Amino acid sequence: MTKRKIINDPVYDGFLSVDDPVILQVIEHPYFQRQRRIKQLGLTYLVYPGAMHTRFSHMLGALNLMKRALDVLKLKGVEITDDECRGAKLAILLHDIGHGPFSHTSERVLVDVPHEEITLLMMQRINEEMGGVLNTAIAIFSNTYHKHFLHQLVSSQLDMDRLDYLGRDSFFTGVSEGIVGTDRIISMLNVHDDELVVDEKGIYSVEKFIISRRLMYWQVYMHKTVIAADQLLLSILRRARELDPTVFHFDTSSPGFLDRFAEVDDDDIMVAVKHWQHSDDEILSTLCRNMVNRRLPAIRFSNEPFVDVHTSYFEGTGKLANRSYDFNDQEIKVLYKDGRCLPISEASDQLDRHFLEKQVTKYYHYFPKEQ
Amino acid sequence: MTKRKIINDPVYDGFLSVDDPVILQVIEHPYFQRQRRIKQLGLTYLVYPGAMHTRFSHMLGALNLMKRALDVLKLKGVEITDDECRGAKLAILLHDIGHGPFSHTSERVLVDVPHEEITLLMMQRINEEMGGVLNTAIAIFSNTYHKHFLHQLVSSQLDMDRLDYLGRDSFFTGVSEGIVGTDRIISMLNVHDDELVVDEKGIYSVEKFIISRRLMYWQVYMHKTVIAADQLLLSILRRARELDPTVFHFDTSSPGFLDRFAEVDDDDIMVAVKHWQHSDDEILSTLCRNMVNRRLPAIRFSNEPFVDVHTSYFEGTGKLANRSYDFNDQEIKVLYKDGRCLPISEASDQLDRHFLEKQVTKYYHYFPKEQ
Amino acid sequence: MTKRKIINDPVYDGFLSVDDPVILQVIEHPYFQRQRRIKQLGLTYLVYPGAMHTRFSHMLGALNLMKRALDVLKLKGVEITDDECRGAKLAILLHDIGHGPFSHTSERVLVDVPHEEITLLMMQRINEEMGGVLNTAIAIFSNTYHKHFLHQLVSSQLDMDRLDYLGRDSFFTGVSEGIVGTDRIISMLNVHDDELVVDEKGIYSVEKFIISRRLMYWQVYMHKTVIAADQLLLSILRRARELDPTVFHFDTSSPGFLDRFAEVDDDDIMVAVKHWQHSDDEILSTLCRNMVNRRLPAIRFSNEPFVDVHTSYFEGTGKLANRSYDFNDQEIKVLYKDGRCLPISEASDQLDRHFLEKQVTKYYHYFPKEQ
Amino acid sequence: MTKRKIINDPVYDGFLSVDDPVILQVIEHPYFQRQRRIKQLGLTYLVYPGAMHTRFSHMLGALNLMKRALDVLKLKGVEITDDECRGAKLAILLHDIGHGPFSHTSERVLVDVPHEEITLLMMQRINEEMGGVLNTAIAIFSNTYHKHFLHQLVSSQLDMDRLDYLGRDSFFTGVSEGIVGTDRIISMLNVHDDELVVDEKGIYSVEKFIISRRLMYWQVYMHKTVIAADQLLLSILRRARELDPTVFHFDTSSPGFLDRFAEVDDDDIMVAVKHWQHSDDEILSTLCRNMVNRRLPAIRFSNEPFVDVHTSYFEGTGKLANRSYDFNDQEIKVLYKDGRCLPISEASDQLDRHFLEKQVTKYYHYFPKEQ
Repeated sequence: MTKRKIINDPVYDGFLSVDDPVILQVIEHPYFQRQRRIKQLGLTYLVYPGAMHTRFSHMLGALNLMKRALDVLKLKGVEITDDECRGAKLAILLHDIGHGPFSHTSERVLVDVPHEEITLLMMQRINEEMGGVLNTAIAIFSNTYHKHFLHQLVSSQLDMDRLDYLGRDSFFTGVSEGIVGTDRIISMLNVHDDELVVDEKGIYSVEKFIISRRLMYWQVYMHKTVIAADQLLLSILRRARELDPTVFHFDTSSPGFLDRFAEVDDDDIMVAVKHWQHSDDEILSTLCRNMVNRRLPAIRFSNEPFVDVHTSYFEGTGKLANRSYDFNDQEIKVLYKDGRCLPISEASDQLDRHFLEKQVTKYYHYFPKEQ
Repeated sequence: MTKRKIINDPVYDGFLSVDDPVILQVIEHPYFQRQRRIKQLGLTYLVYPGAMHTRFSHMLGALNLMKRALDVLKLKGVEITDDECRGAKLAILLHDIGHGPFSHTSERVLVDVPHEEITLLMMQRINEEMGGVLNTAIAIFSNTYHKHFLHQLVSSQLDMDRLDYLGRDSFFTGVSEGIVGTDRIISMLNVHDDELVVDEKGIYSVEKFIISRRLMYWQVYMHKTVIAADQLLLSILRRARELDPTVFHFDTSSPGFLDRFAEVDDDDIMVAVKHWQHSDDEILSTLCRNMVNRRLPAIRFSNEPFVDVHTSYFEGTGKLANRSYDFNDQEIKVLYKDGRCLPISEASDQLDRHFLEKQVTKYYHYFPKEQ
Repeated sequence: MTKRKIINDPVYDGFLSVDDPVILQVIEHPYFQRQRRIKQLGLTYLVYPGAMHTRFSHMLGALNLMKRALDVLKLKGVEITDDECRGAKLAILLHDIGHGPFSHTSERVLVDVPHEEITLLMMQRINEEMGGVLNTAIAIFSNTYHKHFLHQLVSSQLDMDRLDYLGRDSFFTGVSEGIVGTDRIISMLNVHDDELVVDEKGIYSVEKFIISRRLMYWQVYMHKTVIAADQLLLSILRRARELDPTVFHFDTSSPGFLDRFAEVDDDDIMVAVKHWQHSDDEILSTLCRNMVNRRLPAIRFSNEPFVDVHTSYFEGTGKLANRSYDFNDQEIKVLYKDGRCLPISEASDQLDRHFLEKQVTKYYHYFPKEQ
Repeated sequence: MTKRKIINDPVYDGFLSVDDPVILQVIEHPYFQRQRRIKQLGLTYLVYPGAMHTRFSHMLGALNLMKRALDVLKLKGVEITDDECRGAKLAILLHDIGHGPFSHTSERVLVDVPHEEITLLMMQRINEEMGGVLNTAIAIFSNTYHKHFLHQLVSSQLDMDRLDYLGRDSFFTGVSEGIVGTDRIISMLNVHDDELVVDEKGIYSVEKFIISRRLMYWQVYMHKTVIAADQLLLSILRRARELDPTVFHFDTSSPGFLDRFAEVDDDDIMVAVKHWQHSDDEILSTLCRNMVNRRLPAIRFSNEPFVDVHTSYFEGTGKLANRSYDFNDQEIKVLYKDGRCLPISEASDQLDRHFLEKQVTKYYHYFPKEQ
């Protein structure tokens, strides 16, 4: 009898059922379990109190969607071997494993390489430990596998990563704008000339997906108060580093880097911040008390850059940009019954090139609240 | 113009809107903000990954329900003054403020008084700081206020606390069994002879509520693996204390106790556990590595006590008991159109005394997994 | 390329995907399409305005669940051939096809055989027309097929029929009490000694299912006002028949019975009722005006029979009985990891024999509202 | 004690509570009750089987939203008298009362005036019967009341009608694209210079609302197969009229018009169609058999008009147009904290004038399916 594990997931009102022993073993790996202690949306919970969900739950959710997507494609006659199935599942399961605490905020502060590189290092380490079972997964993840559409399921404008995080972040923040017809989009996936495409009937769902992503971007991911909180945390880390350059600093070239890095998570940062409230350095202690008690900087957005702004640990400026859809990226393609295959920017009546290309740029200025 | 704050809450698909400046100020208090860092269900996230929600969100949710309940009662002609409204809201908002990290697990380990006492201490402290605005709230919370039903809204078999946590825990775990017709129950609340009662039409909803609570009890709150994880954490704290009696020990009689206690939350415990993985004490380091990497003890349940069990830091026994409904507590009462008022055990066709009185007792034995 | 049809279904937030050409052809059959015009819950929409859903949607929903159940069982190693899969799907798809308008209300009035007999007649007719493709389905439906568990998927205490209608009726009435963890129950199904059973881990879900059914029974199916409306419709049909015995009367032995019966649906009854508002018979016209304008009889329930009640077209008495769980029926069985298989009445701590056997009987008296 | 009626509504997971005796009496009026027999989306249930919901439920849902909107506005200090509250509620409750069967399809066929005129006639009739209680409601509905924003709550680009039907149609079809953050939008409503406006914070929700409306338009309201079904029904009515000009024809100038019209609903049309299956006229009988058994015409859409199409009862062409947002209509306005008030086309970064003005026009050609 095979071991089967059922993991509850409120997002897909239900659960994920896993019975592949290799996948079960990877889930039990300490590198994977540590993602239970890293929140998916960093400090966003200071604005949306429900947003405590972790990267752990996101990576399992993406695995859930990958399983469904592979089933749909196989049903439509796309050839996918058992090894490729497992590879695609493991690739999506591990696609975020390299994230550190408050990753998008602190990414370039804690460690000097992007999280994708650490992800690859961790995948390679697990692969060694498990005798090469991740070979296909790593090839798919790194886009060196000969069937390109498998990589697109993991990373493209319509991958299982985005499908899961949009739905998940929407669920836990309570922002209904992000709700996506996930099941429907997945049921419309297809493969044409080794490219992941969407069947004609799925065009409205894809439009909705692009719009949802854009709205979530401004309403959640780039929410004013979240930006303000991020800036506060960055000031704290910057100041702490100035006082002690070794604080939360990881050198990828040092021996044992990976295991040391794997021991750090959101909890460590927050405990340090609480500790630094009592620092002798008044700047650091003030910043930390502000963070612990959620006294965040004021912030304003503008379409024009802010000039002549005095910058300090308590004040500064920055820039945000979003385009709902990236033309540099490979375009989402629609497959018609008659065999034609058109990019969404041509296929959609609603979302024409003008709309899709439009880039919204915002400038922000954060500064101490009136005292 | 009054300041109004909108706080998103995915549970009541929407949000909570607060405009009372006193309530806003209480929410901003560090004692309240710290509950952002204490999970509502402790280690339950090791079984239900979505269960990362905090006491902070629960207390705001309970406030949300209290607002609705007060509106319903006033609409039905129950007299409630503005001061009483604010008092009841503040009482429910603060009802859990004294909880420490992993409270139900560690309650008697960290501090030698129950959390209700610390709650009262914290309410009194905030009351002093804010010039007595919590007087009515404290009276309602402590059940010394002359209108008894206001206390029942805060603490009784059908209070806003239970209504919120059942719905919230069900939402975040994804266990649909706990879904309660919250809006309907609240709309059926009434007051009769200074007692909180339920209108006749709400009888089925109350039955459902009692059943849901019972099912959630076994499916979530007393889930085998959660019990196993709790025992592991208790062993860790016990062992760490043995090695150093001052570890996470709080003496309520020491000066500054309240502020020191208020600085400790889930994060501190988990960071300590990670740290102790490298302890020289092999028992402690083993226990901690097991916790960090989620290698939980095996556990089995039985209707009979386990005898002759060898106990250690890695093995032991315990007992759980649940009765869906507590006769020692005040019974839930149903108000009929003709003016009669009957306890639910008489009013309900389905849930008779036999069913309600039934106590389920389980014994458990946890022990190291096969090595 | 195979034809694939996607049918939206708000209940399983998504849709049903069908690609078996035989099943598609059966769905297009006039006998099946007519169920679009027969409401699942008859006059219940007079109490729950959302309850307009049809038998058509229920039968498709039950097919959806059957597909999932068969997938789960096959994954667990239960042997089911392709012919048996299709048979089980067709059996559940057609299990209610014989229902007439307002079936539970008018069943014995319009036609003198129970709806199951007409279902079988219609299945046989379709089978003839389609060259025997329903042979296996009919055997499974009639419980003559050698694998007993396939029949249990169609008709037993835990069949796909009940699972769908509980969830569906709950969804459309808005009565959250009926929400069932459908996906979870289905994932726990198994087969042991040719019996459909539930894996040990599914025990709480089954308990919830039994409780939900009981609560839905009293809150929806036997709702006072629904009973009152049913009695009004019965009085109308009875009076109309008295005036003209051929009205809506179907003789199963007459030639062309099946096609004539298949032409009658809810719409015909309601149009006749509207028409009879202008009847010369004052009893009939009064009853019909009451129905059209929703002036329903008053009704009261009692635990004791009503005696000395004057009966007329406007007044009468009746009796309702419900037991949450039927011991005469085959019991739901739980399969333990150690191979034991126990009936739920022994396996469940909560729902013991006393609870399960309890029969609630209610007597009702309907009478004209005060004028 | 006042009578209070609770009406379940699955859409706002809960219910509507009504205690105003005038509103209760209007709901009981036969003109209102008849809307229980008119589906909100006509023949759409042939594509989305869940879409059986009625105008009755929509009008009650819109009342529900109106209550919330009025509460929000009063809380923000907008002056609204009790009479105006009742007036606004009655206006939205009755705003669709004049709809006939399959209204959008058959509007100009059955009766020669638009449904708004019949709505006004019915409101006036009920007003006479009830001694003038609808005076304010009629003024608000007809936009003659001096407070303009009250009319805008009933009829504007952001009225309670649209908010309810988008959410409701989305719920019953299962098309998640239409989900709107109804509660949030309502909580953001405000009044500025006697105009209904949206607070600054609600800008993303309004963007989402406009996008949802556009997507629902093509995915549900103008779904190919629904258009095909509509054309079939129109052909049937046209042919039946040709054979007998009095069939379903209502002359607004004839005495007793209103009561006769009020007796006709969806059921009558469908029963007539079933009856005409046996007509001697082969065209009529064929069309009707096609409708009853859901053998709908084939249909194709194009961005260019179809030319040289042979038209008949079985074949024809038509044109559809949609602009997500109507500039001729009054624009939705956004109120900033600093007092500025801008139209959404200027306030929104995402939905600029180019996007909002874009009109999508589609041409269709329906024709008999392959025989």
